[in-house]
Amino acid sequence: MKHDSSDRIVDDLRGWIASAASGARLPSTRDLARRHAASPVTVQRALRSLVTLGLIETRPGAGAFVRSVRRAHIQDFDWQTAALGSPEHGLPSVLAAQRSSSADVIELNSGYPDSELLPARLVGSALIRAARGEAATVRQSPAGMPELRSWFAAELGRSVPTALAAPAAKDVIITPGSQIALGSLFRSIAGRGGVLLIESPTYWGAILAASQAGVTLRPVASGPEGPDPDALDRAFAETGARGFYAQPTFANPTGAQWTPSRATEVLDVVRARGAFMIEDDWAHDFGITSEPSPVAAQDDAGHVVYVRSLTKSVSPAIRVAAVIARGPLRERLLADLQAQTMYVSGVLQAAALDVVTQPAWRTHLRGLRDQLASRRDLLVDAVRAHLPGASIDVVPPGGLHLWVRLDDGTDLPDLVRRCEARGVVIASGDDWFPAEPTARYLRLGFAGRDVGSYDTAARIIGESL
Amino acid sequence: MKHDSSDRIVDDLRGWIASAASGARLPSTRDLARRHAASPVTVQRALRSLVTLGLIETRPGAGAFVRSVRRAHIQDFDWQTAALGSPEHGLPSVLAAQRSSSADVIELNSGYPDSELLPARLVGSALIRAARGEAATVRQSPAGMPELRSWFAAELGRSVPTALAAPAAKDVIITPGSQIALGSLFRSIAGRGGVLLIESPTYWGAILAASQAGVTLRPVASGPEGPDPDALDRAFAETGARGFYAQPTFANPTGAQWTPSRATEVLDVVRARGAFMIEDDWAHDFGITSEPSPVAAQDDAGHVVYVRSLTKSVSPAIRVAAVIARGPLRERLLADLQAQTMYVSGVLQAAALDVVTQPAWRTHLRGLRDQLASRRDLLVDAVRAHLPGASIDVVPPGGLHLWVRLDDGTDLPDLVRRCEARGVVIASGDDWFPAEPTARYLRLGFAGRDVGSYDTAARIIGESL
Repeated sequence: MKHDSSDRIVDDLRGWIASAASGARLPSTRDLARRHAASPVTVQRALRSLVTLGLIETRPGAGAFVRSVRRAHIQDFDWQTAALGSPEHGLPSVLAAQRSSSADVIELNSGYPDSELLPARLVGSALIRAARGEAATVRQSPAGMPELRSWFAAELGRSVPTALAAPAAKDVIITPGSQIALGSLFRSIAGRGGVLLIESPTYWGAILAASQAGVTLRPVASGPEGPDPDALDRAFAETGARGFYAQPTFANPTGAQWTPSRATEVLDVVRARGAFMIEDDWAHDFGITSEPSPVAAQDDAGHVVYVRSLTKSVSPAIRVAAVIARGPLRERLLADLQAQTMYVSGVLQAAALDVVTQPAWRTHLRGLRDQLASRRDLLVDAVRAHLPGASIDVVPPGGLHLWVRLDDGTDLPDLVRRCEARGVVIASGDDWFPAEPTARYLRLGFAGRDVGSYDTAARIIGESL
Repeated sequence: MKHDSSDRIVDDLRGWIASAASGARLPSTRDLARRHAASPVTVQRALRSLVTLGLIETRPGAGAFVRSVRRAHIQDFDWQTAALGSPEHGLPSVLAAQRSSSADVIELNSGYPDSELLPARLVGSALIRAARGEAATVRQSPAGMPELRSWFAAELGRSVPTALAAPAAKDVIITPGSQIALGSLFRSIAGRGGVLLIESPTYWGAILAASQAGVTLRPVASGPEGPDPDALDRAFAETGARGFYAQPTFANPTGAQWTPSRATEVLDVVRARGAFMIEDDWAHDFGITSEPSPVAAQDDAGHVVYVRSLTKSVSPAIRVAAVIARGPLRERLLADLQAQTMYVSGVLQAAALDVVTQPAWRTHLRGLRDQLASRRDLLVDAVRAHLPGASIDVVPPGGLHLWVRLDDGTDLPDLVRRCEARGVVIASGDDWFPAEPTARYLRLGFAGRDVGSYDTAARIIGESL
């Protein structure tokens, strides 16, 4: 086949097209004819060949353009294996409690309240007011909006006895959710490579944050009344740890609330050891038959660092939490947080403050208490009816979950798989242990969607056991 | 003085009050009389004493209540000094470029555009639509909203030549601003204790993120056309680094844009070294006399990791950025980011997507270009008129700042202080050097408020020199 001048133009333009952006306009017929010393007819023939090859498209009156269809080629990223090396920590890529699934399965794994438990109208109108205000276009200070900081301080202050100094706005740092605050606290208090004491079982997000921060966890068993102060003291002595992470109020996953006397004993140990306690008051708004009573209210010497988030009780879209820390720790924490997040969106801060200062917020919380109570009782009944071998140590006085102990011989991964195959998503209790689990548990959430399905779900779990 | 039964009641109640919450209600007079085997008159006398002492207040018909006035005591946090030890990294507690000041000073230090340069109406209505939609109450997936990820991928895809595979939504991770993405990238690529190559001078936020991530920076000088490929190659060879951080488009602080041939040469070095380049396209929307041309568009083998934020161009309240990473790196990055932030607020993601897909967004960007051009020219004129000894190497083709070189003998901290005393806040160029500065510079922003003051500001700087 003869290689005519039209072919030469095609070859030349193929090179040009390969390095051009898709949608780029080709030179005009006149320009191409001049450049290749060819006739316009030859150029037109070349362009038709390129159209046939799928490389360009012509638009009458506008010219010829590079087509946006791209070559599908298998990409080879093998080189990254050597460049990345081994990870510093093995973080899971999908977390059981964050798995979300299709609408036709029953989800008992979720750690977030269903949208019917959220003050959706309040959140919507608060966001709209925030969108209309200055918060929508103004940058916030690294520590957060002064009014919101005051609110968080006053909330904790309500529980502070008069003999102690209540926290003030200056002690508060607003963060985009509590997860980043936990990582920052673990790094600031334990330091990379350091040891942190932690309740066991406990929140997987805290275990994850510690792993990400390069902090080694030393578990301290915690029961329905809280951790054993002697065991805690021994753990401090053995490890030289300077910090203890705990959820004294409606702990995730057990729902346990420390008794006041236990809280005092634990605080005494923390004080005597010159250490910090990180109190994660995640379920402050989720009391059912009990009221939250923050341990941080019993300390004004900076031993208890208090973390409270609004994300779960106000809305997952309101990623707003606060850390209340007194003393030099607050400075270290603020510098660390600022280097990661700069500041928190003003719209989210303004909307959060708006929601929690409405009278309707209190009304909502009272209604929420009733809803959680009936949901919890439904799930307890369903578990007791269909899982005769299972036991519930504590009917939780608050929180969003039941912690159900199964027979020690249970094959949990297999159970999870079999339930999932039958449309029930459950979370293996193993994820809530910082070390080897002490027994076989399931964490079953009673705040997810579709309350009516609890009985069916429990029956399926029972049959899958 | 005789210790009568009224005194005993006072002593007893003082103890009770000290551990009670402020506002707590005291037992009734009848209960107190019964408990202390005293007459109601004696109890009333005790209560009056407590009122006099300022410890309680009585409300007729309601009872007696613990007063909310707290003892002011000096708190002693010395114990934290030993508990915290030395910090792992010395992070600054207030950052020059984040300092905000009162309304009556001229701010040339800001790194954020003034609100008059933001699409405030678009942002407001986008937030309102987002507040009314599902995004206000639904949790988002860790990698972000699929539609927003597609938009970021398509934006970069517009510059990708047809011979290469364009990025897809699956390659994108949405983050709450670019700062946290930088830290995560530095940790994932260089690793704690590892070395990262970095342009010099460069963005202080990147220097800060590296310090927070425990990564050692090795500066590579970058000029008006970009870094010298040979110097970059030597730095890779000498350090064994696996990553290079750069702002090829309208770099902060210099405003420089790499030439296309320089970009190709740099990319060749990165490829040959089996390394990553982290392209921080922070000023994508701030072109003045030039268009952005991302280097990432020239790579489909996962060597260039691309970061783009909408926070500066859309609104400081829209803390939304994206990382586009291909290959195993994306998995490592997603796990690391998820352990820190879980996910990004759906309201912010939905509002961001809404803004950037409105036709009015394009119109806004065209107007922004004109405003930045005239602001830049005003500041250049003012500097040339009042700072005869200063030089501007590059009149920036984009970005928000002028990089002004001063006489080598200038005492920068002193100059900054003297200008501030006269109401002009400026940023010392030293903050933009990862190591010792090579010369004395000022970074003067032309996107802050009060354009009319540039001439006055430059005069004051000139007089303070």
